[in-house]
Amino acid sequence: MDYNKYFSADVPSFLRSPVREIFRKVDLSAICSFAGGYPAACTFPLADIPGLTERVLEKYGTKALQYGATQGVPELRELIASRYGVPVSQVQITTSSQQGIDVCARVFLDPGDVVLASNPIYLGALQSFRAYRAQVLPIDSEGVPASAGIAPKIKFIYVIPDFNNPTGKTLTLAEREELVTLARELDCLIVEDSPYRELRYSGEAVPTIRELAPERTLQLGSFSKIFAPGFRLGWMIGPEPLLEQIYVCKQCLDLCPPVLDQYLAAEFLASGLLDTNLQKTIAEYRRRRDRMVSLLEKYMPSGVSWTYPEGGLFLWLTLPSAVDTVALYDQALAAGVAYVAGSFFYTDGSHRNTMRLNFSFVDESKMEPGIKLLAELVRQAV
Amino acid sequence: MDYNKYFSADVPSFLRSPVREIFRKVDLSAICSFAGGYPAACTFPLADIPGLTERVLEKYGTKALQYGATQGVPELRELIASRYGVPVSQVQITTSSQQGIDVCARVFLDPGDVVLASNPIYLGALQSFRAYRAQVLPIDSEGVPASAGIAPKIKFIYVIPDFNNPTGKTLTLAEREELVTLARELDCLIVEDSPYRELRYSGEAVPTIRELAPERTLQLGSFSKIFAPGFRLGWMIGPEPLLEQIYVCKQCLDLCPPVLDQYLAAEFLASGLLDTNLQKTIAEYRRRRDRMVSLLEKYMPSGVSWTYPEGGLFLWLTLPSAVDTVALYDQALAAGVAYVAGSFFYTDGSHRNTMRLNFSFVDESKMEPGIKLLAELVRQAV
Repeated sequence: MDYNKYFSADVPSFLRSPVREIFRKVDLSAICSFAGGYPAACTFPLADIPGLTERVLEKYGTKALQYGATQGVPELRELIASRYGVPVSQVQITTSSQQGIDVCARVFLDPGDVVLASNPIYLGALQSFRAYRAQVLPIDSEGVPASAGIAPKIKFIYVIPDFNNPTGKTLTLAEREELVTLARELDCLIVEDSPYRELRYSGEAVPTIRELAPERTLQLGSFSKIFAPGFRLGWMIGPEPLLEQIYVCKQCLDLCPPVLDQYLAAEFLASGLLDTNLQKTIAEYRRRRDRMVSLLEKYMPSGVSWTYPEGGLFLWLTLPSAVDTVALYDQALAAGVAYVAGSFFYTDGSHRNTMRLNFSFVDESKMEPGIKLLAELVRQAV
Repeated sequence: MDYNKYFSADVPSFLRSPVREIFRKVDLSAICSFAGGYPAACTFPLADIPGLTERVLEKYGTKALQYGATQGVPELRELIASRYGVPVSQVQITTSSQQGIDVCARVFLDPGDVVLASNPIYLGALQSFRAYRAQVLPIDSEGVPASAGIAPKIKFIYVIPDFNNPTGKTLTLAEREELVTLARELDCLIVEDSPYRELRYSGEAVPTIRELAPERTLQLGSFSKIFAPGFRLGWMIGPEPLLEQIYVCKQCLDLCPPVLDQYLAAEFLASGLLDTNLQKTIAEYRRRRDRMVSLLEKYMPSGVSWTYPEGGLFLWLTLPSAVDTVALYDQALAAGVAYVAGSFFYTDGSHRNTMRLNFSFVDESKMEPGIKLLAELVRQAV
């Protein structure tokens, strides 16, 4: 039976995540993986879960197991609203911040529409936007936004301003202001994806884009890095007229976010456990980042450079132009080390001499042999 | 600021769920509600949750809090596969069976495509299909499928064969075979939505449509009625080439279903608790169905008829044609009783003399006064 005739015209634009494909094929625990964007399991509040569960069931009883409101349970919305200083009416809980990205694509994008985005871009966002047959154009290439035919099709700018995935870079205040000015000139929205914002290890916090342009910004938050990704919980802060349509859309998507998980997150947040755990997580990741940087300094040959992220989970390596990280990948995997080739994050597949390294998930005992191995592979490939 | 210019061309087709809108405005605990499709809270295994949680965390540790596979955790997929006698490669876990419906819309439907469906139809499905600007045509209206222009646009038939929402009706084997014949003639898929199948109170089980036509059926299952809806977990059984595209789509939607919740469901199922709890749930709902039927017999004026469902959560009332249940609704709510007007479930808004009554959620002490009140309102409206 040929099933192809049944698929929607969008399906040929579906893009497999090369990262998820790696996970599908390789047992990561057997090798040294700098791929993926998994948080460290040691940061999960495993020991707190039974207690949180009991307290939630005591407080809310069967309500914690029943269907909930599409916008999210009021208790969690209120906690998010008060943490970030916004009215509760501007908060929508999402079933993962990936859903937040996808719902923006669903509600705003038609085939041929344009998303301006940093290049390289987070893969999950690229997948979502492409799946709606939108064009994803790099925000920093000159002249694109000004080009007359394109401007009216630009629906939003997508950006991770804090500790970008994949580069680890943070936008300065001036860069954020420029971006807001551009959005106002183009009269488009901004999707500010902020999954890592609370994970800052050094430097000073910069105002969020939402704070600079609340009237046109949808800010996405995630519990994956400050609680645990297994809960699939995120949130969205934005203007009510936008959230209202997102709310209606979300009725179709899954009726409501997971309810027990929302109450667990609310209890984790309200009890102060989240902030205590976050401090530990930050200390842990700071140490790992510094260790990875010092290992890169120790082992990488000259001609290799990397970003020094002030937070988040990733470092970005630029190798001599002779090195092709896509071609090198199978060899690296066979040798026992995994990374994500940087070109996967480029809308045009360029920059084949770059790679993304994750420092949060890798087993610490494997970090030194892994970087050493990678450095040898790079040296051989130059 | 005018936000309308940012929305996709699909947005004007977004349909608010009148059921969810009722829940948004009315405190259901204060009135007698036959609206909604909520399971009875007393059927939730509340007392089992702490023990299940501890066992899951002991068995799986931090793995239960980490990102999981997009297809769902292997343990749960295997349990579903073995329960329903299919290979594990034909099982995809979904973040609610509503997501299963929506992902079918996403992967198969383009604007103008056709879904054939029973009329009345489940509202959440109608919302999803309309949101992709598909036409939803009643399967039982004569001539529609045969009409030459339409046939090539028909992507799938959508049906709840067991204890349909909203009517409570079950398709006979002959009706299922007819439907399969039609799908084969039209060469379209079938989406068999089965959230209630395990809730049978009387009569004999009929083979599923998947069993009759495995090559073209996607069968959707739900944990909402056999575990608890707060977990937002469902599954999908279908041909691998279809699931493969759904898997890629689901990467964009939310990366993976909630992981701890999946392990809880797996433990609930594997331990036998699910089946023990299911037997209690069935006994409880059977009693409620019988009670509601006897109250309808006792109070409803002549000219009112209803379905006698062999399972599920709903009864369907047909009132004298003079009664308009949409017009009657505000009066009923003010008097303290809620239902869902039947016309909301019709693709053309017809059948304004029908209503859906839910018998699972209503507080049992309120059932008799509620039906009595409803009968009085009907009597006055005739």
